[in-house]
Amino acid sequence: MTVALSTAQLIEKHRPTLDQALDAIRTRAYWSPHPEHPKAYGEGGSLAAHEGQAAFDALRGTRLDLGQPGTDGWTGDEVSPFGIELGVEYPHPDVDALLPAMRAGMPAWRDAGPEARAAVCLEILARISARTHEFAHAVMHTTGQAFMMAFQAGGPHAQDRGLEAVAYAFAEQTRTPGAADWSKPQGKRPPLELRKSFTAVPRGVSLLIGCNTFPTWNGYPGLFASLATGNPVLVKPHPRAVLPLALTVKIAREVLDEAGFDPNLVALAAERPEEGLAKTLATRDEIRIIDYTGSTVFGDWLEANARQAQVYTEKAGVNTVIVHSTDDYQGMLGNLAFSLSLYSGQMCTTPQNLLIPRDGITTDAGDKTYDEVVADLAAAVDSLLGDEARATALLGAIVNPQVGGRLDMAPELGEVALASRAVTHPDFPGATVRTPVIVKQDGARKQWDGTDADAPYLAECFGPVSFTVAVDSVEDAVALLRRTVRDRGAMTVGAYTTSDEVERLVEEACLEECAQLSLNLTGGVYVNQTAAFSDFHGSGGNPAANAALCDAAFVANRFRMVEVRRPA
Amino acid sequence: MTVALSTAQLIEKHRPTLDQALDAIRTRAYWSPHPEHPKAYGEGGSLAAHEGQAAFDALRGTRLDLGQPGTDGWTGDEVSPFGIELGVEYPHPDVDALLPAMRAGMPAWRDAGPEARAAVCLEILARISARTHEFAHAVMHTTGQAFMMAFQAGGPHAQDRGLEAVAYAFAEQTRTPGAADWSKPQGKRPPLELRKSFTAVPRGVSLLIGCNTFPTWNGYPGLFASLATGNPVLVKPHPRAVLPLALTVKIAREVLDEAGFDPNLVALAAERPEEGLAKTLATRDEIRIIDYTGSTVFGDWLEANARQAQVYTEKAGVNTVIVHSTDDYQGMLGNLAFSLSLYSGQMCTTPQNLLIPRDGITTDAGDKTYDEVVADLAAAVDSLLGDEARATALLGAIVNPQVGGRLDMAPELGEVALASRAVTHPDFPGATVRTPVIVKQDGARKQWDGTDADAPYLAECFGPVSFTVAVDSVEDAVALLRRTVRDRGAMTVGAYTTSDEVERLVEEACLEECAQLSLNLTGGVYVNQTAAFSDFHGSGGNPAANAALCDAAFVANRFRMVEVRRPA
Repeated sequence: MTVALSTAQLIEKHRPTLDQALDAIRTRAYWSPHPEHPKAYGEGGSLAAHEGQAAFDALRGTRLDLGQPGTDGWTGDEVSPFGIELGVEYPHPDVDALLPAMRAGMPAWRDAGPEARAAVCLEILARISARTHEFAHAVMHTTGQAFMMAFQAGGPHAQDRGLEAVAYAFAEQTRTPGAADWSKPQGKRPPLELRKSFTAVPRGVSLLIGCNTFPTWNGYPGLFASLATGNPVLVKPHPRAVLPLALTVKIAREVLDEAGFDPNLVALAAERPEEGLAKTLATRDEIRIIDYTGSTVFGDWLEANARQAQVYTEKAGVNTVIVHSTDDYQGMLGNLAFSLSLYSGQMCTTPQNLLIPRDGITTDAGDKTYDEVVADLAAAVDSLLGDEARATALLGAIVNPQVGGRLDMAPELGEVALASRAVTHPDFPGATVRTPVIVKQDGARKQWDGTDADAPYLAECFGPVSFTVAVDSVEDAVALLRRTVRDRGAMTVGAYTTSDEVERLVEEACLEECAQLSLNLTGGVYVNQTAAFSDFHGSGGNPAANAALCDAAFVANRFRMVEVRRPA
Repeated sequence: MTVALSTAQLIEKHRPTLDQALDAIRTRAYWSPHPEHPKAYGEGGSLAAHEGQAAFDALRGTRLDLGQPGTDGWTGDEVSPFGIELGVEYPHPDVDALLPAMRAGMPAWRDAGPEARAAVCLEILARISARTHEFAHAVMHTTGQAFMMAFQAGGPHAQDRGLEAVAYAFAEQTRTPGAADWSKPQGKRPPLELRKSFTAVPRGVSLLIGCNTFPTWNGYPGLFASLATGNPVLVKPHPRAVLPLALTVKIAREVLDEAGFDPNLVALAAERPEEGLAKTLATRDEIRIIDYTGSTVFGDWLEANARQAQVYTEKAGVNTVIVHSTDDYQGMLGNLAFSLSLYSGQMCTTPQNLLIPRDGITTDAGDKTYDEVVADLAAAVDSLLGDEARATALLGAIVNPQVGGRLDMAPELGEVALASRAVTHPDFPGATVRTPVIVKQDGARKQWDGTDADAPYLAECFGPVSFTVAVDSVEDAVALLRRTVRDRGAMTVGAYTTSDEVERLVEEACLEECAQLSLNLTGGVYVNQTAAFSDFHGSGGNPAANAALCDAAFVANRFRMVEVRRPA
């Protein structure tokens, strides 16, 4: 092994970025070292647009050999939601060989200390950043996100979330000094004196169970939080979205190796069709941390069964927007139309239930009845997606047949305010592109109050399906919001109101039910988007997720502090 | 309700102490605001020795009315391990009435913010501190600790641990600012601007399940961590050790009330004999946090079944000391003899297994065979406890018949190196006072290596029973240490060695198995004692405990951060 990168050099290179990240998570001001604009890439070693495209094309139909120990064959059958087959093969793990190999490098990684680990993590992120254009295609063709979203959310925004996790991990590990002298006075006798050392030690192998829709954005926080706190990380991607995380693993292994650490500290566990590898891995004794994004059913299973591990889950939720009143009716409609359309509503943060008083709302454009609001929203969505090119650039593709199935069934749930229509993608005729459906619902209290209530809007309907729910009063809207968050969880809550009193009611509901609230968004910020270093993604305090991205609780229990005391 | 204490005044009064505590947990230097010496009390409103005695005497045979709602009768039958009946009666809760009442004050307590909550907690601690002499008797006569230990461990040291938890809680809650302005550049267009507010919100009612041996020391960290992060705290004491926590609850309720908060934010849940109230409470939906110290069986049950709550447990462990070599043989023997004798070995931190090479050890007093080391240690304990007054002052009383039973059975486990003897307490003839027993054990690898090994020293034998285990080599000692920590957990590990190589081996074992290590203690610091603000109690990374006292992980998940975003 040739140590091409000294950790001292890496620290010198990346410490300023780390310090800026530490400052940003403290001030929560806007900050990012990762450019959002595709044209910002192509210099300083980063791939330009055409180079990224070429790199992605070159990957297709190849075998991605990561040089991992414990490989017992190859697997992979990803098909892009845009219709092309990726044809990339990945190593399939012999878990009994791979897991012990991953543990071998732990002592040296631990002994490197928090600053060196942070610097290595930042080098990994920097190399990922340089290949953002390549990752954009990998994310696009596994998730169905349109190119610009795949570029931004799968690239700089995901890298931001990874860096944020590294910053939190560094801050937590360095709250206790590496060593301390302790001298306790004993009156006239000499003081008791001890020399103490404190070492952040890892818990064990960390398992990342990736999701289909945001493999990097949802994956990087856990991956980097665990690696930065000294744990090896085994990455088990969603079988439909392997490539972005496989590339991540490859880069991580290269950097670790060049920096003189065991590359097996990061490894990939790609699964065979129907193998259920996550379940097998999750209860292995070596696995001590699990990060998971996906269905509530499997998230609950992990929490109940992976008892040997710290389990961080993001599961399903039902996101609500209360529409009470506004002084910018067109801005509200445009903002909501965008939120419902972005990535075909396939975000864990997309609003599902729009609660609107049956008697209508007051706006700067005059009073509007419930029916008018629904019709105007439907028109706003229609107008936003009227241009086919803009529609495909916003909607992306339907990620999998389950989402398409729910979309097709939605009209059976109530009166359709806006029907979904198919859009032909100009570049990818094989893509399934669909506009969102909006379905009207009766939100009378008897429909949702009581343990046996089963209105469709009380459950998650993941995908481009939203419900405009006619409620009897804004108080009922808040009560329904509370019930939904408490029973089903929510990643986001939105509200539009010009009333201080209503604002107070909604805010109190969100504080008590523990949900993140966006008020009166009418411009270029959307309820379904959060910014690393400033916004928390989820609260970790309602059933949608048991952790927030990113806070101290997300990192503080991934390591433990071991103390050694000696007489001074 | 008359608000006698403004939170502004409380903040002004206590902020300097909070700042010192914040500084101490960062430097890990020695610090405490709570005097250890009994004579330090009696001025500035604190009770002097005779006043504390009188206050305790006045409590006996009374009904401690806390003014709690949801009281359905009275309970209490504590009998001191020193032989006297306390005769104090406590309210028995109607849980269906008490739990909702405890939630009523949550919004105002949340809105008070982290600094006001910390100040209120510090006022509670200050009033407890002023009554340290009274608490000392309450702790002594529920735990069996000798007076001086009950005074120090149950008084200032417990108060230190409570203050430490408040400091960690304050630090975690204030890492994110209360509000932030966020402005994201948009090239030539105007920036996106948001005003964000961040509020630390509580999880729900926190349940403290107290233990018999250290009701305040083990109870205060969880109690104050939860209260300082905005959660109501329901205190369910061990039925044999109610009084110290009942007094704590009474003081907390008084301070909350005077400061204008709902006193029901802290309440007592004393149980009827054989009621099993902890089990009932632990799975209630209102209970969102649980702190527990006690048996592994019930701790494991809580972790598996109280799924709606964050569960922090300190359970049983097997503590090991490796004796390899020393340059202060007498110091080592004296130090170990003290550790084995203090509170009759009834500390979760008391060493149980002393691993000694079969071929003997090297010391400044010449080479010593295994038998010589064991005989010299037995003699050291004998000498330490030879004087009856000193013996009772060190040993205290056997806390309950189960401990006495294990002590009586110990001679059946092997050759007795030091027999236990009964000591008559000069002041309390009804007390059960016993010196420790030391039993020799064969530590040949076949006795402990393998999944079916069942040597007595592989399980916890809580109380004044220790094993001198003859191992074949120091490498075997380290291997046995690893196995014991991994399978049974350990709150403490000790080692005596003059060899850098052996020190390195033991240190690596503790880093990998996640156990707190004390090396070569020969003076007035003992392996079973930890100091708040500097030492971690447990690691939270082995089976003895899933949390450490106190670190960020202990507090960071007791609250969640809720964000509200608005256009700027």
